[in-house]
Amino acid sequence: MTPLHPGLFISFEGPEGAGKSTQLTRLAARLQEHGTPHQLTREPGGTPLGSRVRDVLLDPDLSIDPLPEFLLYSASRAQLVSNVIRPALARGEVVVCDRYADSSLAYQGAGRGLPVNLLREITLAATDGLTPDLTVLLDLDPAVGLDRAARRGQPDRLERADLDFHRRVRAGFLHLAEQTPARFLVLDATRSVDALAGEIWAAAAARLP
Amino acid sequence: MTPLHPGLFISFEGPEGAGKSTQLTRLAARLQEHGTPHQLTREPGGTPLGSRVRDVLLDPDLSIDPLPEFLLYSASRAQLVSNVIRPALARGEVVVCDRYADSSLAYQGAGRGLPVNLLREITLAATDGLTPDLTVLLDLDPAVGLDRAARRGQPDRLERADLDFHRRVRAGFLHLAEQTPARFLVLDATRSVDALAGEIWAAAAARLP
Repeated sequence: MTPLHPGLFISFEGPEGAGKSTQLTRLAARLQEHGTPHQLTREPGGTPLGSRVRDVLLDPDLSIDPLPEFLLYSASRAQLVSNVIRPALARGEVVVCDRYADSSLAYQGAGRGLPVNLLREITLAATDGLTPDLTVLLDLDPAVGLDRAARRGQPDRLERADLDFHRRVRAGFLHLAEQTPARFLVLDATRSVDALAGEIWAAAAARLP
Repeated sequence: MTPLHPGLFISFEGPEGAGKSTQLTRLAARLQEHGTPHQLTREPGGTPLGSRVRDVLLDPDLSIDPLPEFLLYSASRAQLVSNVIRPALARGEVVVCDRYADSSLAYQGAGRGLPVNLLREITLAATDGLTPDLTVLLDLDPAVGLDRAARRGQPDRLERADLDFHRRVRAGFLHLAEQTPARFLVLDATRSVDALAGEIWAAAAARLP
């Protein structure tokens, strides 16, 4: 479904505390050194609408059922794809996104138990079929990830959810990686920052426009 | 798809300025006199999540594409159906809702041109198949409705959109009414408040639990 574009679309996935932000920053620095036009963005967020939706989704005082939660992520995603990601890819840029549709399939599908076919169908509409060219999955035992996140301060709504939920999410991510191995780079997030950054750069560089 | 419930679900549809609020209030007063347990609610809104989504949707400074707009309405709707409307209907109450799924089909489908099949499919999921027992459509020429709304103060984002858009929305509502005539009570919104209130009460009373 993805129309050909001259850019490169890289997503980062994995649980809170796996080091996504650190690795996104490192990859951006390498792209900068390499002189490659690129954009960092994130989900939910990345547009004025997305920022507002992000505030709603991450508000710990708000009760949100699984389906409306997924629909809010999808709304942010649809706006981000059409207003930011597609135009940047059409200009031949590298787009690096902190979370994308795989997060919905893992968190709302495997984690919350929403029917995966429904999620895929709505995601297809929201993204107009745009799939990343490379997805870096920073895989981590949930117990380790929650401990790391807690040390950084107040846990948000996702982080407070129970360990079983996070185990289902991890299994969901790994299942997605098994289904489309060519797209996924699965890395053990407990390895050193430098080692991970090296592998991620190698995978990105091999796919550069 | 609608499971049987002992309550009565009434939605009000139509453009801004057609007098929905006035007629909702009148109907609620009649239900009160009649001693019928009832709830007034609205879309978007009706829950803490819905109120937050409403603020986003009605913010005139925010640019929102048609699909994310629909997904935000659907998120508010899903939360409202599961947390408010279904429980009230299960208790045998009358639920009166200011706008419901027909508004999405008319505004985002007929008005903004999103594919109706997609909208219907996502709506089926968001509402778990819950359809109103009675839908009151206050039909009005868009030029008249916009003029009425403008006299009430600052026009919101919907109200500022162009007249052709509102003509497509009106045609969309009338098409829905033609498709399911047993559910719809279509009324000429230029008639007197009392005459309209009388017809609406007669239709509601005939369906009371």
